Amino acid sequence: MSKRRYAVIGTGGIGGYYGGRLALCGQEVHFLLRSDYETVKREGLQVDSVNGDFHLFPVHAYADTRDMPPCDVVLVCMKTTGNDRLGEMLPPLLHQGSLVVLIQNGLNMEQELSAALPGVAIAAATAFICTFKVGAGHIRHAAYGDLSLAPFQAEAAALLPALIEDLRQAGIGVHDEPDAHLLRWKKLVWNIPYNGLTVALDATTAELTFQKDSRRLVVGLMQEVVAAAACCGAEIPDSFIDRMIALTEEMTPYAPSMKLDYDAGRPMEIRTMYLLPIEEARRAGFEMKQVQMLADLLLFMQERRLSGK
Amino acid sequence: MSKRRYAVIGTGGIGGYYGGRLALCGQEVHFLLRSDYETVKREGLQVDSVNGDFHLFPVHAYADTRDMPPCDVVLVCMKTTGNDRLGEMLPPLLHQGSLVVLIQNGLNMEQELSAALPGVAIAAATAFICTFKVGAGHIRHAAYGDLSLAPFQAEAAALLPALIEDLRQAGIGVHDEPDAHLLRWKKLVWNIPYNGLTVALDATTAELTFQKDSRRLVVGLMQEVVAAAACCGAEIPDSFIDRMIALTEEMTPYAPSMKLDYDAGRPMEIRTMYLLPIEEARRAGFEMKQVQMLADLLLFMQERRLSGK
Repeated sequence: MSKRRYAVIGTGGIGGYYGGRLALCGQEVHFLLRSDYETVKREGLQVDSVNGDFHLFPVHAYADTRDMPPCDVVLVCMKTTGNDRLGEMLPPLLHQGSLVVLIQNGLNMEQELSAALPGVAIAAATAFICTFKVGAGHIRHAAYGDLSLAPFQAEAAALLPALIEDLRQAGIGVHDEPDAHLLRWKKLVWNIPYNGLTVALDATTAELTFQKDSRRLVVGLMQEVVAAAACCGAEIPDSFIDRMIALTEEMTPYAPSMKLDYDAGRPMEIRTMYLLPIEEARRAGFEMKQVQMLADLLLFMQERRLSGK
Repeated sequence: MSKRRYAVIGTGGIGGYYGGRLALCGQEVHFLLRSDYETVKREGLQVDSVNGDFHLFPVHAYADTRDMPPCDVVLVCMKTTGNDRLGEMLPPLLHQGSLVVLIQNGLNMEQELSAALPGVAIAAATAFICTFKVGAGHIRHAAYGDLSLAPFQAEAAALLPALIEDLRQAGIGVHDEPDAHLLRWKKLVWNIPYNGLTVALDATTAELTFQKDSRRLVVGLMQEVVAAAACCGAEIPDSFIDRMIALTEEMTPYAPSMKLDYDAGRPMEIRTMYLLPIEEARRAGFEMKQVQMLADLLLFMQERRLSGK
């Protein structure tokens, strides 16, 4: 195994789990933290995982990227609501051969980052995992765990095999996908209905899937996402919808990240998960009317929540 | 003024106000009640109205239509959720020249009643009024009050002028409309967005109208209703949407009937206000995707509420 240097930007459920596993198997991993910085510096990082619990100590913990060393791979695991700061945050971490991996929800974050940091190698990643923070420096990984990765440009494609090798060595299931744009749209087929509707209806994924009216909502939204994706050049077979529904039927009742954000009073990832797909589809001549409607419900709810009404 | 015999079926905010005003100016009005029967029989009907409070005593109060006399005009003021019982309830009230007026929300209730009671003269009515029950036998009429009336068939058209004369004598503003189908669709332009969204977003009409994202929802739904109506042969000018929005901006913050029903744990008028319009539009080749989505949200919420979860 090659030993390489990793940065994890955002040490929540996703960053803590994947970064933690890489560190556990010997990689040099540098974690950026915010509120948990002092705790993790002092006590380390605890990961309770269905694949076996582990504790990391000491941890290379930082509160500012300017204190971090240049890294071979930068795993961006924070919410997309903070992505406008990446252009300023990432440069201290980058060397000539760095690969930035966005393990995030939404569409076209790679384009935005590439515009902010031209020439940087970028990969898209989606995580199929149920993991969340239960306390300061304390992560609970409850189910699943696979990562899907796709290069955004040729520079990234050349750097991805080494990362995939490291992840597999660390015990992480990896799906090597050819097309970042298609990967993002495929993830949206699940994310758009389930993230928004669990918030709008204050329901779990299981309730939405098994009640007939909400299931019709879910399927209708999925069909609109698939149709929009096709207009944008991302071909997803209709059978993918049946697979996503069947998958969700088998899952334990689940609160997706947007539901956790809303319940905790944090801003929701409405822009990258709803508004950017709607915009791309509109440029391709397709109006996502149902998705726009769900987005508007969420925008109203968010403004009311954040304004404290 | 001709003195005629009226029946009011459902003595809530609507029936109590309009029936009360007719009785106040000398018409013989027979009221059907359910839970308030004993109170109204004993104490009469109290109407607190912006046009002046009044008290009716004694009141011709009934708990069953079989005890009521045949009437010249039957004002059906109950929720459409009980309309499947009209075919059984109304016959004792009808004579050869009776006119049945449905002061209700939704679409095609006239067709359904006509199928249940062939040959009966039926008129459609929509009330632009803010009125509700505040206690047993106690109605509060807070604003507005006009009725729009349209004949469903030629038999009804012949009987309407006398009713309109009586209503005007009773101080009620009346709009004499030629087309029941168009009248129903026009009312839906306001009813579909505001009834459903006040429930789905737990918001007042004012919040929905002044917040930019919910206003986009309202306008988008109104546009879909206007487009569906046109496909069904009911031509509503686009300027009607601007008028409805302007009207709502001027209204005091308001909870429409569906919001009151939901908050009180009563079934909502989803079938007549959403599902029947969706069905008629579909038969005309138009898919009301946004309205279907709102209906599905409401159906989910109603099932959860009524099942006590």
